[in-house]
Amino acid sequence: MLSIEAYRDAFISHLEKEIVTKEPVNLYKPIHYILNLGGKRLRPVLTLMTADIFGTDYKKAMHAAMAVEMFHNFSLVHDDIMDDAPLRRGKETVHEKWDLNTGILSGDAMLIVAYQFFENYDAETFQQLAKLFSKTAIEVCEGQQYDVDFETRDDVTIDEYLKMITYKTAVLVGAAMKMGAIISKTDEKEAQAIYDFGLNLGIAFQLKDDYLDAFGDPKTFGKQVGGDIIENKKTYLYLKTLEHLNTEEAEQLHHLYSINPNESSNKVQAVKELMVSSKASDATLKAIEAYTEKALNVLEELAIAAPKKEVLRAFANMLMGRQV
Amino acid sequence: MLSIEAYRDAFISHLEKEIVTKEPVNLYKPIHYILNLGGKRLRPVLTLMTADIFGTDYKKAMHAAMAVEMFHNFSLVHDDIMDDAPLRRGKETVHEKWDLNTGILSGDAMLIVAYQFFENYDAETFQQLAKLFSKTAIEVCEGQQYDVDFETRDDVTIDEYLKMITYKTAVLVGAAMKMGAIISKTDEKEAQAIYDFGLNLGIAFQLKDDYLDAFGDPKTFGKQVGGDIIENKKTYLYLKTLEHLNTEEAEQLHHLYSINPNESSNKVQAVKELMVSSKASDATLKAIEAYTEKALNVLEELAIAAPKKEVLRAFANMLMGRQV
Repeated sequence: MLSIEAYRDAFISHLEKEIVTKEPVNLYKPIHYILNLGGKRLRPVLTLMTADIFGTDYKKAMHAAMAVEMFHNFSLVHDDIMDDAPLRRGKETVHEKWDLNTGILSGDAMLIVAYQFFENYDAETFQQLAKLFSKTAIEVCEGQQYDVDFETRDDVTIDEYLKMITYKTAVLVGAAMKMGAIISKTDEKEAQAIYDFGLNLGIAFQLKDDYLDAFGDPKTFGKQVGGDIIENKKTYLYLKTLEHLNTEEAEQLHHLYSINPNESSNKVQAVKELMVSSKASDATLKAIEAYTEKALNVLEELAIAAPKKEVLRAFANMLMGRQV
Repeated sequence: MLSIEAYRDAFISHLEKEIVTKEPVNLYKPIHYILNLGGKRLRPVLTLMTADIFGTDYKKAMHAAMAVEMFHNFSLVHDDIMDDAPLRRGKETVHEKWDLNTGILSGDAMLIVAYQFFENYDAETFQQLAKLFSKTAIEVCEGQQYDVDFETRDDVTIDEYLKMITYKTAVLVGAAMKMGAIISKTDEKEAQAIYDFGLNLGIAFQLKDDYLDAFGDPKTFGKQVGGDIIENKKTYLYLKTLEHLNTEEAEQLHHLYSINPNESSNKVQAVKELMVSSKASDATLKAIEAYTEKALNVLEELAIAAPKKEVLRAFANMLMGRQV
């Protein structure tokens, strides 16, 4: 087993070798641009790590890791168009740097190229990987659609929100790990267990992101703290707050989420006070803990050696920023 | 063997059964909308017909035919966004009826769903189909990119144009037929031959479309005659005309292709006269014949019974509107 950093370095050096500019350059340049913007490369690292955990040289999982990273970047390019986002990782988004059509078309190509990476495996493995990939990809689309739908709905439930983030974010984490298991030809029970580990960790991770967006340290949180509140985003934290408030306070929150002041700090402050006083912030921390625990509990079911379970446990704790 | 109409009817009735509205409806409704707009269903019919020709019940090819039609409609939805087209088959395009984001996202979902249809086959067949599909899909993207690039280029050669229409249009015709061969588990030589038949027929068909756009009968040609000229599209016919003209006439054509008059009939008339006087229109008809012949010559290589070759020959002649 390597360290997380070592898996990441191995992945990045493979990625750099794979990326060659070819004709038509206007199609492939944007693909290389977005792939080179960096990022934590969490998903491909998980694919490599999982292969090792189930006793297969992580290098065999490199093509699947590429597929996962390519798909993730495809979804970023198309989502950035849909969100009209000017920046991604501090740099111009593809549709800003080039144009709308380039964003659409190079995104499409990335989705197809992702499937092509599976062609490096035997037919049985290819089918299993591509099937899991398609199921995951369609769920990510569905999650994105729910996210869009929720913007104009006032009756989103917490269960619906959890389903949305599960589809939009967590299934790809689960699938990235299950691919490592498939390449290692584990039995279905092990593959499903590692999927569930990734899925629950993915949910915890997204809830943590929601929490930090409001309560994170501006020095260490990558984005603008309070961004979700400014954009009136119906996050877990918001929905939980609404659930806990009495009618009068709920109306106050509804009002705050209906205004878009130029100077937003008062609004952010008022919403955060409701989040704390309602104990929704505590409840969110508890939910994060619960999903993390759910992920860690899955480890008990896995028939792998204790040190390997320890690697997964350490990864989960690192990801969740826990001191344990 | 069935008639073309019978294959089409069988395909449409299968398509209608496959289409069930599910959640999130805002993702799946646009998919059903575009699939129900009609069209000739040429590509899926070719998949079914080819399976029969190689001795396999066409019903076994139904899933692959669905994949081909789904992919074709994906490309229509995304291309219509890129071309800013308001209408498709006389009805509103998806991004017009809904919005840009719906067009992007439902298109993405269609591309993924297309792959999922191959899951109905055994692992070996799945891998061959998905591999061919990915190769074809990426070529279609490249063809679309070349088409976009050519709009702002003044030095497009005829070879480049032929490569562009081959990628953008013809490879999918070839692949649709080769999928029928793959499902019938023919040897690679037969599969390649039927691919080449479809590919050359696809090129001929696109050149014919270019020709009819200028010289078609307004009563029978589905689109506005002269549309390519009005939009200054660099078609085969245009490039061939430029090649045949002397410097002075070429300048005249360049000028005509630089103006966008409100009343376009004089411009269309002048360009068409140059196309005829240069004999580029005749040369285009000859090229159409040559590609059709190339397709038909491939039939000699196929180890199938004469009546089956006759079916393919009749299809080609029907498609090219030949009296033979």
